[in-house]
Formats: sequence, C-alpha cells, structure tokens
Amino acid sequence: MGEVAIASRGGVARLEMFSDGVFAIAITILALELRVPHVEQLTAGNLARALLDEWPSYFAFLLSFSTILIMWINHHARLALLDRVDGLLMFGNGLLLMMVAALSFPTALVGEYLTGPAGKTAVVTYALFVFTTAAAWNVVMVALKPERGLLRAGVPSALVAKMRRRQALSLIPYICAIALALVHEYLGLGLITAMWGFWASIAYRTFGASRGHV
Amino acid sequence: MGEVAIASRGGVARLEMFSDGVFAIAITILALELRVPHVEQLTAGNLARALLDEWPSYFAFLLSFSTILIMWINHHARLALLDRVDGLLMFGNGLLLMMVAALSFPTALVGEYLTGPAGKTAVVTYALFVFTTAAAWNVVMVALKPERGLLRAGVPSALVAKMRRRQALSLIPYICAIALALVHEYLGLGLITAMWGFWASIAYRTFGASRGHV
Amino acid sequence: MGEVAIASRGGVARLEMFSDGVFAIAITILALELRVPHVEQLTAGNLARALLDEWPSYFAFLLSFSTILIMWINHHARLALLDRVDGLLMFGNGLLLMMVAALSFPTALVGEYLTGPAGKTAVVTYALFVFTTAAAWNVVMVALKPERGLLRAGVPSALVAKMRRRQALSLIPYICAIALALVHEYLGLGLITAMWGFWASIAYRTFGASRGHV
Amino acid sequence: MGEVAIASRGGVARLEMFSDGVFAIAITILALELRVPHVEQLTAGNLARALLDEWPSYFAFLLSFSTILIMWINHHARLALLDRVDGLLMFGNGLLLMMVAALSFPTALVGEYLTGPAGKTAVVTYALFVFTTAAAWNVVMVALKPERGLLRAGVPSALVAKMRRRQALSLIPYICAIALALVHEYLGLGLITAMWGFWASIAYRTFGASRGHV
Repeated sequence: MGEVAIASRGGVARLEMFSDGVFAIAITILALELRVPHVEQLTAGNLARALLDEWPSYFAFLLSFSTILIMWINHHARLALLDRVDGLLMFGNGLLLMMVAALSFPTALVGEYLTGPAGKTAVVTYALFVFTTAAAWNVVMVALKPERGLLRAGVPSALVAKMRRRQALSLIPYICAIALALVHEYLGLGLITAMWGFWASIAYRTFGASRGHV
Repeated sequence: MGEVAIASRGGVARLEMFSDGVFAIAITILALELRVPHVEQLTAGNLARALLDEWPSYFAFLLSFSTILIMWINHHARLALLDRVDGLLMFGNGLLLMMVAALSFPTALVGEYLTGPAGKTAVVTYALFVFTTAAAWNVVMVALKPERGLLRAGVPSALVAKMRRRQALSLIPYICAIALALVHEYLGLGLITAMWGFWASIAYRTFGASRGHV
Repeated sequence: MGEVAIASRGGVARLEMFSDGVFAIAITILALELRVPHVEQLTAGNLARALLDEWPSYFAFLLSFSTILIMWINHHARLALLDRVDGLLMFGNGLLLMMVAALSFPTALVGEYLTGPAGKTAVVTYALFVFTTAAAWNVVMVALKPERGLLRAGVPSALVAKMRRRQALSLIPYICAIALALVHEYLGLGLITAMWGFWASIAYRTFGASRGHV
Repeated sequence: MGEVAIASRGGVARLEMFSDGVFAIAITILALELRVPHVEQLTAGNLARALLDEWPSYFAFLLSFSTILIMWINHHARLALLDRVDGLLMFGNGLLLMMVAALSFPTALVGEYLTGPAGKTAVVTYALFVFTTAAAWNVVMVALKPERGLLRAGVPSALVAKMRRRQALSLIPYICAIALALVHEYLGLGLITAMWGFWASIAYRTFGASRGHV
C-alpha cells in the first residue's frame, strides 16, 4: 500500500502548495473589502473626502496584508523542516489556514467601525482573531516536536525548541492586545501593529541567516 | 499523436493541480460569506451582541471549511491511485468540483436562516448539497473500478472495492440527514456534523496508515 | 541573454500554470453569484419557494461552470502542442483568459433577468460573450499555424489545420445564437447549451484518442 | 542549518509561484466589480441601455486586466534574472503584490464615477495607484542591483542597469498622469492607457528577444 502514501516528502510538498494557494487567495481577497464609497451630493471634492474618510479600511488592509505575507514566509521556513506530515500537523495547519482565510472578516470590521463608538469591539474582535491564529501556530509547533518524528534528518532540536518557545511566548502580547483594546481601541491596535514588526524582523532574519549557506 | 496525450500520469498531475486550485479557492471564499453586521444605534455593546448573534454563520463556515479540507485530503488519497484519467473520471471530478465550489451558497443560507422560522429549509438545502457531493464521489469511485484500467499497477482491488462500498454506503446517512432536517433543523445539522467526524477519521487514518511505509 | 528567455518549453509551462490558475479561480467565483434570497414574511415554505424561483441562477451557474471546465480541458490539449510562446499567442491567450474571468458577469445577468421581460437582453449579452470567447480561441489557433514555428516537432500539420477549421466554423453557431436570442431568449440559450454538448464531446474524445498511446 | 534555507533558487521558485498566484487571483477578481445593473421599469430595451451605460466599468476592467497581465509577463522576465531572494526583494515584491491585489479598488471607482461630476477624483486615485505600483517596481529593481548579489551568474550588468533606468523614468509619466487628471479626467486616463501600450511593447519584445535563443 506504499503507493497510496501521501505522507513523506511528497505529502509535505502538496501541503505546502495547498497552503500557498490559501495564503495567496486570502491575501488577495482582502482587497474585496475595500469598498467604493457612496456619496450624497456627488462632487469631486466630496468623493475625495469620502475616500480619505475610509482610511481605517486602508490601514486594516495594509495590516492584514502584511500579516498574511509574513505568515507565509514563516510558514515556509517551518514546513522546510519537515520530512513528512501527520494528522496533528494537518489539524494545526488546517486551523491556521482557516484563521488566515477568515482574517478578511475582522479586517472589514476594523475598517468599518474603528473610528466610531464601537471601535473597541472591532479591535477586540481583531485581537481575538490574531490570538487564535497564534494558538494555531502553537499547535503546528507541537506537531514539530522532534520526538514526534516528522522532522527531516539533521534539523537541530535546539532550533525547533527555540521556535516553539518563541511561539508560545507570542500568545502573551496578543492577550495583552485584547486587554488593551478593552481600554482603548488604538492601544490594542498599536500593540498588534508592533507585533507585526516583530514577526517581520523574524522573517527578515530568515533570509539573512540562509544567505551564507547557499 | 502520442505527444498530444494529456491522459497518462501527466494528465493525473494536471487534474490534481487544477482540483487543488478549486479546493483552495472554494475553501477560502467561504470567508466572504462572513458579513460585517449593520447595527442600528451603534455602541460597543450593540456591535458585540450583533457579532455574537451571527454564530450560525461562524458555525456554518467552520463546518464547510472542515468539510472541504477533509475532502481535499481524501481527494489526494484517491487520485494517488491513478495512472491516467478518462472521460468518466473527468465528468465525476468536474461534478465534484462544482459542488465544492457551490458549497458557499448553502453555507451562507444556513448562516442567515438557521435560527429563524425557515431554518428547516436552509438545513434541508445544505443536506441536499452534501448528498449530491457524496453522489459525485460515487461517480468518481465508479471510474476507479479496476476493470476500467485507470489504476496504477499494484493497487490492490480489495482496497478500491472497500473504498467504493464505503462511499456508496455514505449516501444513506445523507438521505437520513435530509429526512431529519425536515423534522427539525438541528437534527439534520447534527447528523451532517457527525458525518464530518467520520470522514475526518478516515482522512486521519490515511496519514496513520502511510506512516509505516515512508 | 539566453538566461532571460521565458519563451521555450519553460515559457509554455508558466503560461499553462497561470492560465490554469485563472481557469480555476474563474470557475470557482461563479458560485459567488449564487445569492441567498431575501424573503418577506419568512416561513420555511416561502424560503423554499424563493430558492426554487432562483432556478435560472442555478442553470446559468451549471452552464458556465461546464463551459469553463471544458475550455480548460481543450486549452490543455492545445498548449500541449506548443514548444514555445510568442507575442501573438500571449495576446490571444490573454483575451481568452479575460473572457473566462468575465464570464461570471453575463452568468449573473442571465440568472437575474432570464425569466422577466428583459430575458432577451440577458441572453443576447451572454451569447455575445461566448461569441467573443470563440473569437479569442480563433486568435490562439492562428498563433498555432505551423509556419509560425511555435509547434513542437512531430505535431502533424493536418491535426492543427483541422482544429483551426473547426474553431473558425464554431463562430457561426454563436452568431446564430445571438440572432435566435433576439427572437426568443430560450432559443438562443438552447443553442448555446447544445454547443456546450458539442465541445464536451470534443473534450471527451481527447481522452479517448490518447488512451491508446499511454 | 543549510536545510532551512529558503533563499537560493528554490526560494526564487516559491516566490514566483506565490506571486503568480496573487497575479492570477487579482486579475480574475477584477470581474467581480462588473455589477449587474438594477433597472426601474424593466424592459429588454431599458436593460440594454443600462448595460451600455456601464461602459466605464468595462473600460476600467479592460485596462486593469491588461495592466496586470503585462506586469505578470514583466515580473517573470525579472525574476528569471535571480539566483536567490533577500529581505529587500521580499519587501519590494510584497508591496508590488499589494498594489496588484488592490487594483480592483480604483478600477471599481473609475467604473462607477468616471462619467459623473467626480470623474476627476476617480482618475486621480487610479493614477496614484499606478504611480505607487511603479514605485514598488523601483524598489524591486533596487534589490536587483548587481552589487547586492542576488543575480544569476552571467546576467549582464548593462541589461539590469538599463531596466533600472527605464523603471525610474517611468515614474515621470505617472506623475504627469496625476497632474493631467486634475485638469481633466480623460487626459489622465489617456496617458495611463498610453503607458499601458508602452509596457505592452516591452513585454512583447521580451518574447521577440528570446526567440533566437531557444
């Protein structure tokens, strides 16, 4: 029955391709939430003002686009460690993809409600989504534990342990972001944006680190 | 004219890639049905309540996302058995992809109408879709009959026969789900969710089974 | 500068992948035009009736889905003949992909207006789209003329000539479909559906023909 | 840690595939902005007139579709020069993909407002988007500087220098387009369309140039 096997490096390649597809689609459909404004008393000036008033939509688009792009880079760096996949990895990865696909929802929410009286609710919801996404990453990292036997030969345990610790610790700032958003929406959003900077630097270093080895 | 042949292993690879694309897009656009609620008398509390009131949308999204993800896994396990494709397989697979693509429609229906007086109609429609999807799987399985000559060398007939029987039997619970939904929407939805658990375990076992052969 | 070359078999592969992506996305987003009906006086029966009243949407979805699926199959059979791409082929293929992507528009039009007093306009528009799509195919076929040097070695000129003639002739029924739709919408739609059957048989034969060569 | 490296030719391939995915999705979802018109006093004639009145939507769709298609071709020609990727390239490419994904927004804006009193605002916005897109291309070209070491062996410095100059100069007409659109919307749109012709000829020459080397 060896022919039926979809685990093994072939299985990893398929999972990568499918995940890449979902990442690419999810990142692109974020743009569908950029809505053409409807203007009473249409003039060039009023339309310009209506467009500028939609800045929270643009900011949310920018934030979510960057978030998914960076997750895509980190996703590759992690799947590159794998020799095969199993059920737990599939489950964790599936949960992760679901959160990635669904990110357009809180993005639209922030875009529409950030500046109004319900901005707090919008940002708390966004923060809950990124927290759940971080939790999904943690499931993926549990699946990568060396003793579970999915890793490629030669991947140092210390590297994976460090990744796992970092991922576990990342849950804390997202909890803080939820709490901060309950105080004021801009505080919560500020912390989420700062975390994005942190992950971007991790992704950036991925390229730096590998430069010397090519 | 051998150069024009798109059947053969190359044809299977193309079909897999195209199918993967449709699966990935269909699973991601489910998120487009998560609609930002519109709230009269906007306050942080009212928006939060409006978001919570949309729980049927989240549940339907979760159910359909999981359904497509599991079908994707099972799809791979089946196409991995093939050496080439023919017209019947293309037809069955096309019907299957059509149902996968269209799943966002009954998903949105359940999301919008589950809790109201027309919940029954929404769930019956959803059940009809999953039943038709199961029927499409059965067409695919007919195309895989060993005597039709599409299978790779070495694929045991008994394995395919077992898969085909299981697939044929799976039509029964979906007929039951339609009937149950006519009694009460939650009964029908409950059975569909339970079936999802069944297929998940099949998919999970796919990984377990292949583990020993890598 | 040989390194920069994107024509050659690698260029064909890229074009195939990009085209496949557009086909897969275009076929899947057709489902986004299946709209959840809004019902005054919501009851289970009224929602059921509203769903049944949307049958033109389902028919149009089915027709357009099948059309794109069959075009995808035929697209492969044609690109499989190529050794490299050039500007004319890129232009013809680009026009074709544009029509494929845009097909969701006349599909939605037929879905919404077929049964009302403007059914004629909807079907004429749909027929104009499929006519333009057939015209784009003809541009692709012109690019495949043997003397233009894009074909792989060993592809018989007679085969390509036959394909080109068939494609040129296919413009006639689509002109008839436009004319017939001006008389009555169902006549035009009937002819378009019949043409779909014709192309399906061509696609089906592709598999039959190649069967003997594997 | 060589196993973890995602830079190197494998990294380029992944980046190409992900970018291709975003290009393919972005180009296809442009069609979602083609909206079925809603007609008071529905007759065949009124629907036909409403469809013809939407010509700015069709023109904007055509323009944006061609723009993305041509950018896709040029994107390939440039990534084909690379041996590996680094952070700056990822950043520039990410910005580029973001603009490509977001292009459906100004496209819809032009489609809806071109012929009304706010046409100027719509075209200025569109021009700002294409200007920012050209700026993103310039970041990509900076990343390709020979001394940064991403290029494949044998790629002539003069070729890259010429590409970079051309890209830098291309910012000027887009600034002019913004200025012209402030005078009259059709002037700005005309220049943008003309620039599209320029890039199309560059893309076309890519095929011509490589023809001799296959």
